[in-house]
Amino acid sequence: MGKGLIILYTGDGKGKTCAALGTAFRAIGHECRVCMIQFIKGTIPSGELQAVKRVCDLMDIFPTGEGFIWSEEDIDKNRETAQRAWEFAKEAIRSGKYDVVILDELTYLLNFGLIDEREAVEFLKSKPESMHLIITGRDAPRSLIDAAEIVTEMREIKHPLDKGIKAQRGIDY
Amino acid sequence: MGKGLIILYTGDGKGKTCAALGTAFRAIGHECRVCMIQFIKGTIPSGELQAVKRVCDLMDIFPTGEGFIWSEEDIDKNRETAQRAWEFAKEAIRSGKYDVVILDELTYLLNFGLIDEREAVEFLKSKPESMHLIITGRDAPRSLIDAAEIVTEMREIKHPLDKGIKAQRGIDY
Repeated sequence: MGKGLIILYTGDGKGKTCAALGTAFRAIGHECRVCMIQFIKGTIPSGELQAVKRVCDLMDIFPTGEGFIWSEEDIDKNRETAQRAWEFAKEAIRSGKYDVVILDELTYLLNFGLIDEREAVEFLKSKPESMHLIITGRDAPRSLIDAAEIVTEMREIKHPLDKGIKAQRGIDY
Repeated sequence: MGKGLIILYTGDGKGKTCAALGTAFRAIGHECRVCMIQFIKGTIPSGELQAVKRVCDLMDIFPTGEGFIWSEEDIDKNRETAQRAWEFAKEAIRSGKYDVVILDELTYLLNFGLIDEREAVEFLKSKPESMHLIITGRDAPRSLIDAAEIVTEMREIKHPLDKGIKAQRGIDY
């Protein structure tokens, strides 16, 4: 696959995780092995999880989170989980088992101080040469933007929650 | 699936088609039937096409284009192809066979005047009630933004083509 890139999808708009999943889908078509680690998403069965179970032996998906983080209390509750998940992610990256690794919503771990930003970014930069790394999440810190080769900001122009439309199964999760 | 939404991914950054594909992947996990019509992409076997062939009976994907449009001459050459593709897309939308329809890079057809913007947007607004419609492409016209419930602009912050890195199989196509 040539040189592996670090790709970052950030911003407040819809489409960050979807873009990562779509890239995974493409990569699977080229017989690449894909691993997705979800840092926030917990045990609710998502479409992507069920799709992977249904159709694919080339992709692994690991929801490691405990749901969305809303309060200071949540942050404390999530610290240990986050650190375990990060160690797990590092193992997956080092293992050589995957051509593409997705770190879904990793930025929250950095922004809430759940893991050390500097250590994390240095580790990401030392990833295996040919592996593509895709990172998603709002408010990516500067150091992560600097480390990435491709950075797209998803800007919210319009969102239906503004109009009181609920999250949709098959679209939002 | 409740009320179907019109979702628009526009802007100059990477991730528009990927976001559409990722949404498709999610939807498949929920047993939705998905159709993707690619207006620009032609016959080069893309990762998404091979992924769909490999793994999935719930998704159809139709590349109808003749490759990227660069010149006035290309626009003329593409007019008939584009109009045929648009008729095909309308059939797919009307057919009732799909829960999610993706119109990949439709905005180019509108922006180059290959199909009539007003007619097209009116048609999209009259889609079957429960169907989700996902539209991608740069420079979405105002009328399309108005018609959509969710609009995300993918803004390019950094792109490796700036640094002379070539498009990557499994990531870019």
